[in-house]
Amino acid sequence: MNKYVIGVDLGGTTVKAGIVSFDGKIINTVTTPTDAEKGPEAVSRQIAKVIRELKKAEKDKEIIGIGVASPGMVSLDGNTVEAPPNFKNWGSFPLRDAIVAELGNRLPLFIENDANAAALAESKFGAGKDEDNFLFVIWGTGIGGGIIMDSTIYHGPHGGAGEFGHSSIDYNGPVCNCGNIGCIESFIGQRYLSARATEYLESRKDSLVWKLVDHDASKIEPRILYDAAMQDDEPAKNIMTEAGELLGVAISSFMNTMNFNVAIVGGGISAAGDLVFQPMNKRVRESVMAPLRPIAKVLPAKLGNQAGILGAAGLVM
Amino acid sequence: MNKYVIGVDLGGTTVKAGIVSFDGKIINTVTTPTDAEKGPEAVSRQIAKVIRELKKAEKDKEIIGIGVASPGMVSLDGNTVEAPPNFKNWGSFPLRDAIVAELGNRLPLFIENDANAAALAESKFGAGKDEDNFLFVIWGTGIGGGIIMDSTIYHGPHGGAGEFGHSSIDYNGPVCNCGNIGCIESFIGQRYLSARATEYLESRKDSLVWKLVDHDASKIEPRILYDAAMQDDEPAKNIMTEAGELLGVAISSFMNTMNFNVAIVGGGISAAGDLVFQPMNKRVRESVMAPLRPIAKVLPAKLGNQAGILGAAGLVM
Repeated sequence: MNKYVIGVDLGGTTVKAGIVSFDGKIINTVTTPTDAEKGPEAVSRQIAKVIRELKKAEKDKEIIGIGVASPGMVSLDGNTVEAPPNFKNWGSFPLRDAIVAELGNRLPLFIENDANAAALAESKFGAGKDEDNFLFVIWGTGIGGGIIMDSTIYHGPHGGAGEFGHSSIDYNGPVCNCGNIGCIESFIGQRYLSARATEYLESRKDSLVWKLVDHDASKIEPRILYDAAMQDDEPAKNIMTEAGELLGVAISSFMNTMNFNVAIVGGGISAAGDLVFQPMNKRVRESVMAPLRPIAKVLPAKLGNQAGILGAAGLVM
Repeated sequence: MNKYVIGVDLGGTTVKAGIVSFDGKIINTVTTPTDAEKGPEAVSRQIAKVIRELKKAEKDKEIIGIGVASPGMVSLDGNTVEAPPNFKNWGSFPLRDAIVAELGNRLPLFIENDANAAALAESKFGAGKDEDNFLFVIWGTGIGGGIIMDSTIYHGPHGGAGEFGHSSIDYNGPVCNCGNIGCIESFIGQRYLSARATEYLESRKDSLVWKLVDHDASKIEPRILYDAAMQDDEPAKNIMTEAGELLGVAISSFMNTMNFNVAIVGGGISAAGDLVFQPMNKRVRESVMAPLRPIAKVLPAKLGNQAGILGAAGLVM
């Protein structure tokens, strides 16, 4: 009998559990609402529920452990989850203990921050399979990240490593909601990118973007910019190029200090593909120290929204 | 009989060797010219010479190993030194093999990049004694660095970690001599800081700085700015404050991504003390992620120009 692992992706609205083979295939999944508004005990119950259902549905399979990818900061001992955004009444909650209690489970159970789990997924099964060290970046609503060092997750001295989105690329720039100045997130996180694009497009009323949003500036968002750029709209292409370059600047600084030559970028906006990866790679190759230049590269993530389940499963493997 | 270690500090003009006790005291030193212009074999001979002389002078002491702190990039196997700046006809040279051959030596011999060695010295004997993880910054002609992780030097995947001076703090900034844009070095490295200060002072002819340099702009340098600031000259104080803040911005980005809460700053310009450390610490405490804020700190290095010998010795310990 082959061995399998259950990976759980805890999201703000749904909990998704998948049964995963050791070569990184998701065989079956079960989904349920998170009930994030009902507090941490309710969420623990929902997690236990999908795990039980999946075990029942796959009872012919030997399951050797469970991993959970969770938003928020996970304590270094892997038990407590701190204040995941959009989860009510949470504070600092011993999620592992709670799930184990719910399950009456003797299987090993690991919890990891979701960005770190996604980084691990790329390391084990995705774009980072052949790389021992890389910076993982999630480029979507915000900019999150994880660091893979010697093929394992780097947690940092206090468990919160990977907050790459709060690297400043402009000491004179806008104040980010984190309190820092000129964070890369405050330039190209979804909301900020849309606002910057809108401002740029104010004086470019002939841009296709305006047609696509029916001249409603509030509808300008990365997806639209991408569509316009794919139809060769110059202003939209310029916006995507600049966004890729800016991310390249932040990635280069990290590479220089840490001597890394690989970054992997996923998340919604990275779906723009070459439009952003080409300028990003160009900037990185121009900006890293000479010895890194021939080997520096930014790769698109491969696992998309499977990264949560696969990374959670990877914690056990 | 107590055990001792020889630490060698290889500089561009002199080689300095010291005999060091295990509690980090330099008992005796020997110095000789580097002969950097005569090529790597000559330099190896000079290094062997100071080691021999020191052993002779301290022949009652048991020496258990030798460490060498060298400029340039040291290969991951610790043998080859690549292109140390200002050393002629060097290229990539097997310095360890050459010294060992010169000495006919059976003592273990370790070579490390000088910035990394200085970081190790601070970790073992200096401002980082109580810290397992910190970023070390040398703020002088350029901005160099080293990373101490779990109380050891972090070399990075390719041996060149610590190039913190080439972190960009301005995506739109000046092109650095490394090719990157807006590197922190290109703002506050000695030459750049002097140039920025000169520009700033052009419209502030009443500044004490002008008196101190006899109205000769070419004489403006950090030392003078420091002297003027200590005499309460506002423009000079503003320049030092801004320099400290800018370094704080770069340090904060690193802390956020790596989850570090400690940086140690040494090098000539850091001698300005509170004038730069106060604004630096203020910026860091405002710019790091919330969980790091209560514990984030930038400390002045403690070992000054002893750091080379002590760090080299520390390689053996």
